[in-house]
Amino acid sequence: MVVEISLPDWLSAETLPTHIESIEDRMRFVIALSRRNFENATGGPFAAAVFEEATGKLVAAGVNRVMPCHCSSAHAEVTTLSFAQKRLGTHDLGGTGMPAHQIVVNWRPCTMCMGAVIWSGATSLVIAGSDDSVERITGFDEGPMPHDWQGELEKRGIRVTDNVLYDEAVAVFHAFAASGAVVYNGRGGGAKTSG
Amino acid sequence: MVVEISLPDWLSAETLPTHIESIEDRMRFVIALSRRNFENATGGPFAAAVFEEATGKLVAAGVNRVMPCHCSSAHAEVTTLSFAQKRLGTHDLGGTGMPAHQIVVNWRPCTMCMGAVIWSGATSLVIAGSDDSVERITGFDEGPMPHDWQGELEKRGIRVTDNVLYDEAVAVFHAFAASGAVVYNGRGGGAKTSG
Repeated sequence: MVVEISLPDWLSAETLPTHIESIEDRMRFVIALSRRNFENATGGPFAAAVFEEATGKLVAAGVNRVMPCHCSSAHAEVTTLSFAQKRLGTHDLGGTGMPAHQIVVNWRPCTMCMGAVIWSGATSLVIAGSDDSVERITGFDEGPMPHDWQGELEKRGIRVTDNVLYDEAVAVFHAFAASGAVVYNGRGGGAKTSG
Repeated sequence: MVVEISLPDWLSAETLPTHIESIEDRMRFVIALSRRNFENATGGPFAAAVFEEATGKLVAAGVNRVMPCHCSSAHAEVTTLSFAQKRLGTHDLGGTGMPAHQIVVNWRPCTMCMGAVIWSGATSLVIAGSDDSVERITGFDEGPMPHDWQGELEKRGIRVTDNVLYDEAVAVFHAFAASGAVVYNGRGGGAKTSG
């Protein structure tokens, strides 16, 4: 028996860009995936992509797959980092001789995904925002974070760039909340309907 | 394309117990798997098992699979919770009408796995220990944890039982360190040889 995490059909079928130049365009791409994921009922409103930082080469793109894949760990970051590592054939995106890898996510990581980013070998994290908007607008719980989590990443050699296309990301969370979709929070209160 | 996490052949081939009664015997089972995993070179010295808490029915057993599966998120807890969820066909081990589920692990979770336990729906966590033994003996980094992480789990309805067969668990870490096996720490310093 194996555990499998798959991408949605609409994403697998897509011809993705091979390279995306600017940080803003990388985030725009990720935010668009986050919206399509909940609009297609293929997971929560979260997406991520791993790039070669310098060239903008797209290594992997993924989305939240918790409910469709019956896997509470299949947040966008874990899913996407796992696809990137599979594609490159290594558990370490920061291995010797490899180019620096960047993960771009449409919001700050939850406590699990913060750890997943640290262990992935990525050397930079780009997020659209890090305030309480997601929790306030959608009802998702981000879990207990260490004090100064961005500093903890920096200490481990992972640069964090925050507030890239903040308004565009928040607009997706408002649309998600208005849709009445299910919010899954584990022991934080079980599945409940947001909005 | 799908991401796959598999169990080692020696574990897949095994006829596992259907039920394990006491907490100590559940931990003894898990510690034995943690030792066999590194001795067979099928992953790090970490294992976990998910049980129906009241009956002791074994739902899933798993081990660290980071390096063999090219997946930095495939720690013992993430792997085992994912197998349990796959077996039960749900992302939520705490769903309505389900029995309470317990995860037993041979040491305290890292920052990622602490989050994974919270999102899993498990209602109790049993660990062999939570001090700095693993980091001190093996060189593994556990990552930045929130203040009073056990309290954070309790607040979310997850009971934590600590120090179950502490000495037996630590003995495995000493054996692992003496073996000269590779320790993977992501940006904490890259793969290095312990001991």
